[in-house]
Amino acid sequence: MANEKYSTVHYHNYLELDALLSLQKERSAALGKAAHDETLFIIMHQVYELWFKQILHELDSVCGMFRTETVNADNMQTVLLRLQRVSVIIDLMIEQIKTMETMTPLDFLEFRDFLFPASGFQSMQFRMIESTLGLREEDRMTYHGKSYKIVFNEEQTARLTAIEEGGSLFELVEGWLERTPFLRFEGFDFLTAYKKAVDEMVTKEQAAIRASEYIPPKMKEMRLRMVGDSNSYFKHVLSREEHERMIAEGECRLSYNATIAALLINLYREKPILSIPFNLLTELMNIDELLTTWRYRHAQMVMRMIGNKIGTGGSSGHDYLAKTAEKHKIFKDLHNISSLLIPRSSLPVLPEGLGRELGFYYGSGA
Amino acid sequence: MANEKYSTVHYHNYLELDALLSLQKERSAALGKAAHDETLFIIMHQVYELWFKQILHELDSVCGMFRTETVNADNMQTVLLRLQRVSVIIDLMIEQIKTMETMTPLDFLEFRDFLFPASGFQSMQFRMIESTLGLREEDRMTYHGKSYKIVFNEEQTARLTAIEEGGSLFELVEGWLERTPFLRFEGFDFLTAYKKAVDEMVTKEQAAIRASEYIPPKMKEMRLRMVGDSNSYFKHVLSREEHERMIAEGECRLSYNATIAALLINLYREKPILSIPFNLLTELMNIDELLTTWRYRHAQMVMRMIGNKIGTGGSSGHDYLAKTAEKHKIFKDLHNISSLLIPRSSLPVLPEGLGRELGFYYGSGA
Amino acid sequence: MANEKYSTVHYHNYLELDALLSLQKERSAALGKAAHDETLFIIMHQVYELWFKQILHELDSVCGMFRTETVNADNMQTVLLRLQRVSVIIDLMIEQIKTMETMTPLDFLEFRDFLFPASGFQSMQFRMIESTLGLREEDRMTYHGKSYKIVFNEEQTARLTAIEEGGSLFELVEGWLERTPFLRFEGFDFLTAYKKAVDEMVTKEQAAIRASEYIPPKMKEMRLRMVGDSNSYFKHVLSREEHERMIAEGECRLSYNATIAALLINLYREKPILSIPFNLLTELMNIDELLTTWRYRHAQMVMRMIGNKIGTGGSSGHDYLAKTAEKHKIFKDLHNISSLLIPRSSLPVLPEGLGRELGFYYGSGA
Amino acid sequence: MANEKYSTVHYHNYLELDALLSLQKERSAALGKAAHDETLFIIMHQVYELWFKQILHELDSVCGMFRTETVNADNMQTVLLRLQRVSVIIDLMIEQIKTMETMTPLDFLEFRDFLFPASGFQSMQFRMIESTLGLREEDRMTYHGKSYKIVFNEEQTARLTAIEEGGSLFELVEGWLERTPFLRFEGFDFLTAYKKAVDEMVTKEQAAIRASEYIPPKMKEMRLRMVGDSNSYFKHVLSREEHERMIAEGECRLSYNATIAALLINLYREKPILSIPFNLLTELMNIDELLTTWRYRHAQMVMRMIGNKIGTGGSSGHDYLAKTAEKHKIFKDLHNISSLLIPRSSLPVLPEGLGRELGFYYGSGA
Repeated sequence: MANEKYSTVHYHNYLELDALLSLQKERSAALGKAAHDETLFIIMHQVYELWFKQILHELDSVCGMFRTETVNADNMQTVLLRLQRVSVIIDLMIEQIKTMETMTPLDFLEFRDFLFPASGFQSMQFRMIESTLGLREEDRMTYHGKSYKIVFNEEQTARLTAIEEGGSLFELVEGWLERTPFLRFEGFDFLTAYKKAVDEMVTKEQAAIRASEYIPPKMKEMRLRMVGDSNSYFKHVLSREEHERMIAEGECRLSYNATIAALLINLYREKPILSIPFNLLTELMNIDELLTTWRYRHAQMVMRMIGNKIGTGGSSGHDYLAKTAEKHKIFKDLHNISSLLIPRSSLPVLPEGLGRELGFYYGSGA
Repeated sequence: MANEKYSTVHYHNYLELDALLSLQKERSAALGKAAHDETLFIIMHQVYELWFKQILHELDSVCGMFRTETVNADNMQTVLLRLQRVSVIIDLMIEQIKTMETMTPLDFLEFRDFLFPASGFQSMQFRMIESTLGLREEDRMTYHGKSYKIVFNEEQTARLTAIEEGGSLFELVEGWLERTPFLRFEGFDFLTAYKKAVDEMVTKEQAAIRASEYIPPKMKEMRLRMVGDSNSYFKHVLSREEHERMIAEGECRLSYNATIAALLINLYREKPILSIPFNLLTELMNIDELLTTWRYRHAQMVMRMIGNKIGTGGSSGHDYLAKTAEKHKIFKDLHNISSLLIPRSSLPVLPEGLGRELGFYYGSGA
Repeated sequence: MANEKYSTVHYHNYLELDALLSLQKERSAALGKAAHDETLFIIMHQVYELWFKQILHELDSVCGMFRTETVNADNMQTVLLRLQRVSVIIDLMIEQIKTMETMTPLDFLEFRDFLFPASGFQSMQFRMIESTLGLREEDRMTYHGKSYKIVFNEEQTARLTAIEEGGSLFELVEGWLERTPFLRFEGFDFLTAYKKAVDEMVTKEQAAIRASEYIPPKMKEMRLRMVGDSNSYFKHVLSREEHERMIAEGECRLSYNATIAALLINLYREKPILSIPFNLLTELMNIDELLTTWRYRHAQMVMRMIGNKIGTGGSSGHDYLAKTAEKHKIFKDLHNISSLLIPRSSLPVLPEGLGRELGFYYGSGA
Repeated sequence: MANEKYSTVHYHNYLELDALLSLQKERSAALGKAAHDETLFIIMHQVYELWFKQILHELDSVCGMFRTETVNADNMQTVLLRLQRVSVIIDLMIEQIKTMETMTPLDFLEFRDFLFPASGFQSMQFRMIESTLGLREEDRMTYHGKSYKIVFNEEQTARLTAIEEGGSLFELVEGWLERTPFLRFEGFDFLTAYKKAVDEMVTKEQAAIRASEYIPPKMKEMRLRMVGDSNSYFKHVLSREEHERMIAEGECRLSYNATIAALLINLYREKPILSIPFNLLTELMNIDELLTTWRYRHAQMVMRMIGNKIGTGGSSGHDYLAKTAEKHKIFKDLHNISSLLIPRSSLPVLPEGLGRELGFYYGSGA
């Protein structure tokens, strides 16, 4: 068996091309009214499903690495590379919509009826991707008032439920953020220091506005109000109680501690030890945005293809897709971290020890 | 003077590079707190404005050609090529957002305050593009309850109003569609023939469903209802009275006659004489979709950059952009034509004479 | 059977997902040394093969349409749309290289040995695409001094030979160009008129240079020589004898008559009747360029993956691909038409009748 | 002055739009024969020059950071982000070629003569980019047998020479690699360990081939020979003497020590401390490849535009560009590192201390 390594492999067999290239079964041809463009329709959906499989392959391995007790530093680099690959694939999926757009509505009509009521809603793998990332049943659009699972059979439904209950990437990343060891370090309390820094920044800014001889009085008032509002905003969102109220009322999802850890990572992202964590959070936002763009472009394409009429799945495809584009976003809270940042010049200085811990030096000196 | 043709031209002077490359005036540097990334911010906006100028150059020439009494066939091909160029440029503008995304929120904070209250809302050229395409003042989002023109000076406001009143591309295309000579041709009335074809198609389809031994009764009912609904839909939207009611109530904008002409062009698009018109309508939809995608991606980028907080222009940039993405669409009615199409096999056959008129033959025979 | 139309279709079955998603058989896993990235390697090649199938589907239909006795005008529009689709697909294939680039050389080493000696050289469908477009056996790079067919089995070799002998798209387009009815029209001989126009243009230009008071004498000389050279160039390449010598010596391939017809189409491309022919020639050049870019980018990727070492197929993949990039170009002669053009202002005016024939008018007037 | 911060900034003034939008001076219009497409020609070149300025802004800052005595770890992250930005910009520049491709050769002819002899060869900033990256005068294509600097004036020539002599990014990265502290660490000598690992891998592989019952004798011979060749290859390229001979004869450029350091970084790239260095080397290769692709696509576009005839600069633009595409590559040696890698399973194990130094742990445990 070990020697099989040396047997001869041929490209054709390795890729199972005989099987692969015989799976395009045009219904229009089977029904005696061959429509040239149905082949494109099948192939582009099959290509999507192959990419879905690849994405799941990456996401499953990433979740697996997050699940090990101590997250290993070597793994983190691999986690990052695999998430970046997922982004590259979704980017390609967005480009692929252009192939579908070479089909005109009239060409689609030639075989559209033969597909009824099959629909993209029925893609099991796409639902698995969303759930693995962290989309919960309650976050989803319902399907004519019923669960999105209604289009799947029992075994598929069970698989989807298992994913939803098994700990999504969202929850794994949240847990990892909460464990970050940087928030408290030998007497340095990041959150207290940050709140103080915000206060100082605001006070200084207000003083500068009041002292200015060049700002017209009316403008001064407006600017002072803006700075004040900004101050209350920070106070508000940096408070644990307020954050927990927001979670309870569904306004955000990421836990308080994880949020503060993500804030720290964003603020000190050029420290070498935070480089991978920062890139990782960025990549999660990327994936979220790219999936949103994909749903959105998809909605546009359906609109052009069939107008406002209902899709083959029996519902208005365009409306559904357009609505899910934003609603199915998962890492919104990470995007919102941006509103908590202050300029570098106002940042609290890290204590010596922590700074050393977070950085290291290359170069002749060492 | 004619001989200047032969004087020596140098790339550097031709492109006015001395001037061009001195127009990046970083405010952060001027104020003594040089922020590395402000240069990118300036350059990418200047590049956008250069592309806007190019788009206006194309749109103005296209409108000019539509305005001539008899639209010349040679012009139509040029019109098409120029609109296609506009699409290619907007596609590039969408790609360009990626350069902005290489800037992190923290880097932006380094100079963001210096820009207050400048804002992309103040791009005169972008407003001109929208108005030239056909966006009316009443279609636009208001700006804190006021006209979008409030951020422009008197002369700029006057220019925008002149464009709005001067006949937009939407109106010019509408007029051109209304003049299409194919709707009535020696006794052939397209609309009557089409309504009849829809009727026949529906009747045939219903009979087939009723006769089927394979469709379960419950499914039969559902399918019959769908076909019936589809029939009322066609009756509804092909009626002139109904169409005029929709226009009056703001549900659509394109005139009845222009809509029917666009329908004909879509249905018989492979007839050579309709090739350019079909491509032209397609290109208008493309431009509309691409601008929508650009606004949408732009909104995503702003969200990542500053979260839900207000933009430098003093309003929530993300919300504004996300809302205008769909609302500022101009050629929606062309997209909706898709819902009026029926399969080729059910199409009314064109009378011999018209068919000949619309087609011509290459090849040995002729 | 006819009623099967109404049976229930499910997305999952329609796309044969059970089969499709079970065709990724990682050899590293089978041999007990599972390498995570082999899945990507398999899936991206399978996706390529699916797109190859789609491209062949389009090219075969296009060739079929060209083969009918009288090329029908309606078909030409469809031919164009299908070639444009091929371009969109190859564009996507180029983008797809980015997915492969997310794999590092070290990751590839984990399973590379298991694939020996399978290789992309063995893709039957890609060879079919090249041959269908018009690449002849003699135009190809040899494979270690032997025919490229050596890696295929008997049945595959027979299919490739059949395509090579069956009339490629190059030959079909050449024949169609030769049949274009515009070269001679009621006493108007395009070629004679064109040669005369070139002469007049050159004479006028030389006179202007000589008469100029502003060009320095040395510069005058240089410019006169350039115009003169340009004149001989035109004389040279517009001569039938010279053209036939070039074909005989393998310097070009497209027949003299076809070349002149392509020249005419390029010169008068805004005439409506030439719109589709012009777009068609453009699309063939596009496809050629895109395939070249794909090979080239592919070569770059292989270089990064394995350096200058030999590929899994046992030859230096990078060198092979880099060399074929230019060598396997098929429609070079169409690209070269550009060098035969003169400015619109110097073009021979078409006789009234021909002008009318080539154009038609939309609009109120007619 | 400090208060200027609060003065009012308007988008229009901030971007210097009045000046910017008046720099498009069409020569065709000035000479009384306005050609519509010249505006595109000017604008797309001006956009390129703006991006060139941005690229130089990034490269200069990166070189500056490399020049400081001890390269600071925080800087390295910033270096990486700025190089990634350069890649994103060149990617966009490649896309931009599509805007130029919307111009047909005939449209270009309308104003091409007016530009003589201006040419893209005369772009000062592009030469500065190449030299800053590390292209030496001797690596460049000559210009009709003369230095590429001949098209520049004295002051420009001086600036180019200063860059060439001032220490390019290539040299700065080489120096930094040579200083990497990992090659020798408390008694561990990486190179010796690596050569031993290669030997062991080869011996094991040969034994496995000889012992196999499944490989046909002829195939065995071939495989043994391949493994043997591979062994000599490694011996060869890992030898300092051989490497120095190659440098002397111009076959490679990167110093021996820098090459070995780059090899180590590639082999252990998932160690956290090597994450940024690995990404940095990758990004340099990216930039090199993207510039190559840009030159190549540019050459294709020129070919389509003017065929094989000479460009406005008086030389065959296509040939020049096609040749420089590969020849002007700067970081070839980094690409070649791939051929020196062996699979992870055969890698020498790092001594405990070094492993700890290179990695660190996130998570609960610590």
